[in-house]
Formats: sequence, C-alpha cells, structure tokens
Amino acid sequence: MSELRKDYVKNKWVSISSQRAYKPNDFPTGKVEIFRNPSGFCPFCEGNEAATPPEIAALGREQGEPNSKGWLVRAVPNKFAAFSLEGELEENRNGIYQFYNGLGKHEVIVETPNDELDFHELPLERMEMIISLFKQRYNELAQDPRIKYIQIYKNRGLFGGASLIHTHSQIVCLPFVPSENVGMPQWYREKGSCLICDILKQEQESQERIVYEGDQFIIICPYASRFPYESWIVPKRHTEQFGELSEVEEKELAWLCKKISVAIVNEVGNPSYNFVINTAPVNTAHEPGYHWYMEFTPRLLVPAGVEIATGVFINPMAPEIAAPILKKGFK
Amino acid sequence: MSELRKDYVKNKWVSISSQRAYKPNDFPTGKVEIFRNPSGFCPFCEGNEAATPPEIAALGREQGEPNSKGWLVRAVPNKFAAFSLEGELEENRNGIYQFYNGLGKHEVIVETPNDELDFHELPLERMEMIISLFKQRYNELAQDPRIKYIQIYKNRGLFGGASLIHTHSQIVCLPFVPSENVGMPQWYREKGSCLICDILKQEQESQERIVYEGDQFIIICPYASRFPYESWIVPKRHTEQFGELSEVEEKELAWLCKKISVAIVNEVGNPSYNFVINTAPVNTAHEPGYHWYMEFTPRLLVPAGVEIATGVFINPMAPEIAAPILKKGFK
Repeated sequence: MSELRKDYVKNKWVSISSQRAYKPNDFPTGKVEIFRNPSGFCPFCEGNEAATPPEIAALGREQGEPNSKGWLVRAVPNKFAAFSLEGELEENRNGIYQFYNGLGKHEVIVETPNDELDFHELPLERMEMIISLFKQRYNELAQDPRIKYIQIYKNRGLFGGASLIHTHSQIVCLPFVPSENVGMPQWYREKGSCLICDILKQEQESQERIVYEGDQFIIICPYASRFPYESWIVPKRHTEQFGELSEVEEKELAWLCKKISVAIVNEVGNPSYNFVINTAPVNTAHEPGYHWYMEFTPRLLVPAGVEIATGVFINPMAPEIAAPILKKGFK
Repeated sequence: MSELRKDYVKNKWVSISSQRAYKPNDFPTGKVEIFRNPSGFCPFCEGNEAATPPEIAALGREQGEPNSKGWLVRAVPNKFAAFSLEGELEENRNGIYQFYNGLGKHEVIVETPNDELDFHELPLERMEMIISLFKQRYNELAQDPRIKYIQIYKNRGLFGGASLIHTHSQIVCLPFVPSENVGMPQWYREKGSCLICDILKQEQESQERIVYEGDQFIIICPYASRFPYESWIVPKRHTEQFGELSEVEEKELAWLCKKISVAIVNEVGNPSYNFVINTAPVNTAHEPGYHWYMEFTPRLLVPAGVEIATGVFINPMAPEIAAPILKKGFK
C-alpha cells in the first residue's frame, strides 16, 4: 500500500509506493542493456493487453471489445501505481511524522501498438491522437474533486527514468497542489500580469531564444534553463488549464511535439529526455497567474549532489546557444 | 563567464556556467563506457598535477613543493567551475529577467593519488584525512563574507552525475542561501525544538529505521526517504555548522563513511551514489533550528518527469525495508 510521507526538511512530499524489498537488479539503472537490446516480452505491445490492468480508454479500435487488438493509442492504469483513488484523503500521524494514504491516480498512455517506432517517429495523425487522449483524460480526471493536480509526463530513455522501451507517457493525479510552480501566481500578485505572457513578449522582442513561432504556440529555450537544450512549447493564448486546449491548438501542438522531438533526437545526439505539462491546479480555489505550457528536457546531465542538496541546477550550456541548434530542425 | 539566472516559475536559481556550445558527446551520459573501461589520461592522478589549476591545500606530502608528487589528499579549484569568487555580488537585469554574476567558489577534493581505489576502498586513515580536509576547507571558506552557503558533496558513478572515475568530492560555495532546508528553521519556529533532534529521539525509540548507533552519530534511513536506501549520518550533538565538528566526531564520521559506503556497495549491488552535507548558512543572520548532517543517496532510480515537474519523489522502497539490509554491513 502506498503512502505520501512528509519530508520536513525539504517541506515536500514523498510517495513511498510499496513495502516490497526490491533487489538492486529491479531498478532501471541495473538495466542498461534493455535500452540497447530490447527484446523479450513487452506488456505494452498489441496482443499482450491482458498484461496491463483493464484499459480506461483506447483510440483507433473501430470494432472489437475493450482490451482486444486493433487500438492505436491506449490508456491503462499504471500496474505499479504510486497512488490509488480509493476513499477520502486521510491524514495520519506516526509520532512526529505526518503521512497521507496514497490517494491519487497513476495512468499510462501507450502511444503505439508495437515497440518498433519511438515517439518522434510516430506519424502526425498518431501525435494528434495522443494529444487528444491527453486532453480527454485530463478533463475526465479533473471531474474527481479529490484530485487537485494533474501531471502529464513522459520518461524517454535510461537517463529520462524510463524502465520500458515501448513509447508511452504517464499521468499522475495528486491529492494536493505541489509547490513547484508557485512563481506564477506570485508574479501575478506582485506585477498584476501573467509571468508566462510577459516572458513570451520579451522573447518575441529579443528573438535570441526562440526555436520556432507558430500561429498558436511559441517554442523557446527558457532564460534560466535547468537542462542543456531545455525547450518550452508555450500557447500564445493565456489559458490556465491544459484541458482548455482548443481543436486548432491540439493540431498545432501535435505537429510541434513531432518537430521538437525529431529536432532533439537529430540535433542533440538522440539523448534521453522527458516532457512534462505544467498547468494550473484543479478542484481548488487558486490564485490567478497560471498559464499552462509543455517542457521538453533532454537529459544529457544527471542531477547530481549539488542539485539534490541545494536545488540549484548547474547547466553548462546557455539557452542562447541551444536555441539556434534546435532551430535547424524547423528549417 | 558563468552567471546565476532566476527561474521565476520555480523560484529558484540556475547556474549557467559557460557560453560554450557543448557537443552531445561532451556530456557524461554519452560516456557510459568510461565507467566500464577506465583508461587514458586522468587529470587527478599523481604526476598530472599540472592538469588541474594550482592546488589550494594538500595533505600527506611531507616535503616538496605544492603541486608536486607525494600528496594523499588534494584540494584544487574546479577547472570547470560553475562559480568564481571575484568582485562583489552584482544584480543585473535583462528586461524582465534577473541574474547575478557567478560569484561563488567551486573546489574539488581529490581523495587518493591514483584511480585504483574507489572511495569505499580507501584505508581508514585516508578517510580521516578527507574529513579533516573537508572541515579545514569549510572553515576557511566560511571566512569570506561574500559566501552564504557551503555545500560539500560527492558524485559517484554514472547515475550519480560523476564524469571522472577517479574518486573525488566537491565543494560549491553559493552567494545566497538555497531554500532547500527551509523546514528546519520552520520547525523550530513552530515547535520551539530542533527538527533533527526530534527525529533522532523518535528513531531511537522505534529502532525501525536505525542502521547503526555510535557514540557520536546515528545512521538512519529517513522516514520520507526520496531514494531507495537513502541514509543519513546524524551527529547526536546539536550543532548547526559542519565546521564545528570536534576531533572525536571527525574520527567517528570517517569510520562511518567507510562503513556505510562499503555497506551500500556490498548490500545494494554497487550502485552510483551521492553524499551531501546539509548544514546551516554562513555569514548571514539566520533563524535557529539548523542541525548539520550527511546524506548518502544511492541512485538506483533516475529522477524522472514526475520528480522534475512536481518535486514529489516516487520511492518504491520503504526505509523500514532498507535499514535492516544496510545494517548487515555493520555486523
């Protein structure tokens, strides 16, 4: 049974997701080889639907039962979920320590029925299906009042924290609002304007860190990039929630996901990477100032002792250097 | 020239340490092989003293000039320093963005004159020298009023963020106090007692998460461990600053560093790991409630999309399971 434990030193929460005694080889860092020689049984491949918990949604299957073949994109519960959406959020104490039951939700979006193609190789129509399923799941999950924050993310490659090579994304729903994006409402409180809109304005003026400007979105390498080649896909329209994505935005976002992931793979030497979608909290009165956007973070460096201890990232490569390199992928 | 840039979304600082266009192969994740087949020129080996900037201090060299052979432990400036201690801290603006010149300091402690032995294999007398040099550097660096926080840390192995196999630690001096350990003064403000002392008391009562109890220190797997097998070496004596380490504490800490690193290597499958020393700020009026301690964090999992985006670590292995396994190394 998983639980959320309070880290009183860092003032953060940790999900302790099992009581099992994992062996060293159970961890991904012990599995360098699977990223070189993928083989063997894959629970995400078509035909192995029974290897995942029963599906939540699927796109592309025109006929046939749920959990049968014929799908193109599939949402399933994470078998090793860090959270489960049962009952109410319960605060518990263990002496001076505080913990919550692991209320929340953890889903997997399997992005293709076989493991031959990687994310950046998927056809544009598939990208559109993936974005569409992200939005569908986001808006459905936001209906549950126990959920306060919905985090969509992808772990690609060994250094991105992936443990399976078959391309997939994940959705974690938290019973509280993490403090990571606190700077957005704070900026609004202090300046009366949206931080992300203000950033876009300055970036459009300077052009230094712009990778691509489309009709709906701008891609920038952010000023204070934590990671070399970090890239943000930012909607020009001020919208708090990812779930507010319009149809025309959906289409452009799908195309940009394809283009930026190809650019990262081609121009940055096929690195591990993550993407994450930063968005506003749900089901809770929150301050104004949120503006959703998507972050792509190549993982050429491992967060090391100094990052763990101080939270200060050391990035040897300025975004002004990275942006023109990624821009090549858009020519 | 390096600079500190404000990340307004996360309310944190990023060190952008160079303007050079690094190639993908310049990054450690492109160098999996050096951790398997170490070979070639090592700038930290005895005889190659000219490959590092001139040494700051050295122990074990009984005669001979600085930067000559004969040393056992050696402190040198980091050649790829994220910071340099020149002039005064200057706040600058670039439109809406805020940045500081990269004022600070970045040193390397080379822990052995050759790369045949790894940290856990060093003799106890060498461990004592290393701890002694940590303390010496800490207290000397704390003399500079421009420095507000001193972070000692080690990156071991590919997944710990190391880029050289020759065992070494690092010291980063920041011109500001990072917000990571804010929970310690907050606890004191709210409860009137020291968080770390309160944690030690509860852990001594329950015994569940204790790995070892010595005369001066207790090793625990902390209640809200972010990493599987995370271990803290905590001084029983309430002391704010690492630099206050007494001679008898120095000796026990050296022995415990040896024991816990051997236990991690032997019982946890020789993983990458970090250690970091959490301590109080220097040269600044700070609230009471700090209590220094040392963290060992095996790196069996890579911080992935969910950790990057939300700051919530997912740890599949409870500390109550990890502690008895590490305890075997102390029998």
